[in-house]
Amino acid sequence: MHKAWKVDPSVSLKAGSGFKLADVDPSSTPGFKGDKQTGADVLAAGAAQLTALQQRLYARGVEGDERRVLLILQGMDTSGKDGTVRHVVGTTHPEGIALKSFKAPTPWERRHDFLWRVARQVPAPGMIGVFNRSHYEDVLIQRVHQMAPAAEIERRYGAINEFEAGLVDRGITVLKVMLHISPEEQKLRLQERLDRPDKFWKYNPSDVTERGFWNEYQESYQIAITRTSTEAAPWYVVPADRKWFARIAVQRLLDGVLEGFDLKWPLPSFDLATERKRLKKS
Amino acid sequence: MHKAWKVDPSVSLKAGSGFKLADVDPSSTPGFKGDKQTGADVLAAGAAQLTALQQRLYARGVEGDERRVLLILQGMDTSGKDGTVRHVVGTTHPEGIALKSFKAPTPWERRHDFLWRVARQVPAPGMIGVFNRSHYEDVLIQRVHQMAPAAEIERRYGAINEFEAGLVDRGITVLKVMLHISPEEQKLRLQERLDRPDKFWKYNPSDVTERGFWNEYQESYQIAITRTSTEAAPWYVVPADRKWFARIAVQRLLDGVLEGFDLKWPLPSFDLATERKRLKKS
Repeated sequence: MHKAWKVDPSVSLKAGSGFKLADVDPSSTPGFKGDKQTGADVLAAGAAQLTALQQRLYARGVEGDERRVLLILQGMDTSGKDGTVRHVVGTTHPEGIALKSFKAPTPWERRHDFLWRVARQVPAPGMIGVFNRSHYEDVLIQRVHQMAPAAEIERRYGAINEFEAGLVDRGITVLKVMLHISPEEQKLRLQERLDRPDKFWKYNPSDVTERGFWNEYQESYQIAITRTSTEAAPWYVVPADRKWFARIAVQRLLDGVLEGFDLKWPLPSFDLATERKRLKKS
Repeated sequence: MHKAWKVDPSVSLKAGSGFKLADVDPSSTPGFKGDKQTGADVLAAGAAQLTALQQRLYARGVEGDERRVLLILQGMDTSGKDGTVRHVVGTTHPEGIALKSFKAPTPWERRHDFLWRVARQVPAPGMIGVFNRSHYEDVLIQRVHQMAPAAEIERRYGAINEFEAGLVDRGITVLKVMLHISPEEQKLRLQERLDRPDKFWKYNPSDVTERGFWNEYQESYQIAITRTSTEAAPWYVVPADRKWFARIAVQRLLDGVLEGFDLKWPLPSFDLATERKRLKKS
């Protein structure tokens, strides 16, 4: 861990019992001593570490190790989910990444239980899976706009906990991250999408409409985190008004998980001397 | 295009009529004036261009442009397919990449036509799809080891051409790349996998066994290229004994395709003035 980290984000950003979203300052940089420039150094060093660890994880997966990671990214529009995918996940080997972006469910998906489409995207052994949005939309936007009956929303918290506990039992570390921005920062980011022709395509008029439901979204996040931040699969709430901080924090969370795996290179599954002789003669 | 390129690989590496694989020197660097260090500069510059163009392609895809690219990577074991994925494809935004590595078909896949599993992996509009191995295995390893009757292998060349022509008709540029290495270079690369503990997992005893069929593989590649290098979906044969050259060549082929698309940022699909007012009030 880079020395600019004074407290590991897995400690400082964890949503434990009594967690209150309203107490998190989106512009803060908890546990980190340094500025944006320090952050750039930390990101580069962390990227090298992540790629190195990812290679071992992948290699072990090929050889039968069941472990894998599932990074779940949630956050309001413009909170930096895509940027995290690009600048944290995107520095690694694509072969070891299983990225899935969940959009509004299709009519076909809606005919199934809300977990059906996510269960099919659970990463294979050795992989780092990434959900850009996830089954949490089913207790966030769906709760805010009452797209499902209250009893069904209520049912989902328990269903999510059971689903995720099952993943953990199978060797999948579930890393749930909320990128937490302020409404003021969101406004600046949306403004940029209206100012820059290379950003127009990212803008959707509904983004402004949704701003009218800010408090309802915060409330839904609070409830979701309270109900689903379990010992097996805790939530981490990452202050995200400063993009550079959010990126190094998510990267550090990933690196920390992989460090915890204590990943050795797999031993050869063949006899080295025999194979060296065979190759020589070939 | 970087000035070190004297002839665009889309010209110098294209397998046209009368193409002879045996005439391609795997250690050559056709059309390129420069050494490994020049290659590193070219790779960095090309990566920036590729990411910039990819973003436009993706944005246009969101807005309804049907165009996309499918890069098909083939080559003998150790020819550098994974490295190309890492160092060429892996420098871009993961959200715009649809990577699929095809392994030996499962029993379930074998119950279907050989094109069934690849057809399901055709990239969506705006994406750069990458096949690490592909339906060509069905006329390569399957031909070498007579895993299908001769008449079925024969049928497949035509089936591939029809399938790929259909892709092209739907706006998919099919970029077929063979990474061409020498048996001597392969021996060195396999040796490395037996020398380095971080490479053991990449070694498979069957790799040496397959070396015994080198000529049969070359013959199968020659036939496959002759039969399926069409005007709509030509093959490019990339000398790959020098990894640095193979990478910049594939990158240049991709960049060239995207340059040819003449990708403008999409126009806003909403009224800018209205949205600026709405955002301000929000």
